[in-house]
Amino acid sequence: MDNYSSKLIEDAVNQISKLPGIGKKTALRLVLHLLKEKPEDVQLLTGSILKVRNEIKYCKICHNISDNEICSICSNIKRDKSLVCVVQDIRDVIAIENTAQFNGVYHVLGGIISPIDGIGPDDLNIKSLIEKAASGSIKEIIMALSSTIEGDTTVYYLNKKLKVYNIRVTIIARGVSIGDELEYIDEVTLGRSILNRTLYDIK
Amino acid sequence: MDNYSSKLIEDAVNQISKLPGIGKKTALRLVLHLLKEKPEDVQLLTGSILKVRNEIKYCKICHNISDNEICSICSNIKRDKSLVCVVQDIRDVIAIENTAQFNGVYHVLGGIISPIDGIGPDDLNIKSLIEKAASGSIKEIIMALSSTIEGDTTVYYLNKKLKVYNIRVTIIARGVSIGDELEYIDEVTLGRSILNRTLYDIK
Repeated sequence: MDNYSSKLIEDAVNQISKLPGIGKKTALRLVLHLLKEKPEDVQLLTGSILKVRNEIKYCKICHNISDNEICSICSNIKRDKSLVCVVQDIRDVIAIENTAQFNGVYHVLGGIISPIDGIGPDDLNIKSLIEKAASGSIKEIIMALSSTIEGDTTVYYLNKKLKVYNIRVTIIARGVSIGDELEYIDEVTLGRSILNRTLYDIK
Repeated sequence: MDNYSSKLIEDAVNQISKLPGIGKKTALRLVLHLLKEKPEDVQLLTGSILKVRNEIKYCKICHNISDNEICSICSNIKRDKSLVCVVQDIRDVIAIENTAQFNGVYHVLGGIISPIDGIGPDDLNIKSLIEKAASGSIKEIIMALSSTIEGDTTVYYLNKKLKVYNIRVTIIARGVSIGDELEYIDEVTLGRSILNRTLYDIK
């Protein structure tokens, strides 16, 4: 147990080191940094944290984080509402948005099926996805989940639930990452990338 | 520029990523973590940060951080006030306190002399150290600064200022770290550790 010779420092270090990936040493470094900052700037930091925690909403349509009832993607008239990309969480939405390759909308599950962690289908935003599918407004659902056992299980489960509707269910391509050297790639990925080869297309 | 589809998230990420060593990705991870925490717990975090920034004091004697006018070390009657350990900043106080090997008091300079960074003697808590020395209450001053050009310069400067007083000025031992393998140690450290060898003493 470190001796900070100050209860105030100790409290702040203990609180900050509760954050994931931040230990006591880093927390102390952050506290000592904040002590040198202007009080107004520290107020801006804590204010923005409190504000995001207390005011954030979840989109009623796609469960994405949102400043309003409906998120900026679902309320954008230029996005194709008949094309739904199913993702595990909000970070995936940000990652896919950053590619600028997708013009549909999302459906955030809020997790993936993981019996080990006690997460079953009922703990995820699956019911609302089925309802959307049943409404007949969706043409295609893209499964953009991690290529893990849990991800594959979730895709399998969703596909079974969705196949009664007339919807094209697709899955993002698995294969060799751009820039990867072949010799370092695991054989499952490499095998799948050969099976799922696409026509070489010089434009 | 990432698209967070939420101004609240964006603000919090921008504020958190101003902290040293925290980038946008880590900041987003922290924000998404905080969204899952109870509002009361987030309040505890931000409250402790605001409190430490607004209420922290600096000890009038040693310039250490303190909850009161005089820090818990300087006000501890069991500590030897005639033995003063000069350190660069508060972190060094914590590091030395954790060794449980020192029973004197500290003097926190608040930095070291570094012409490149524009830090001269007048920017540091040197005047109060000289005053303490002049008062005749100090028997020994231990220089516990980093073994860098700046650290050595500061020690040289302080020693010159202090030698008019009848005070023993010492410097912490430089040498081979416990657990280090000899072949990986730089020659200056190794050379000094041979010059400053101590008698092998089996207790």
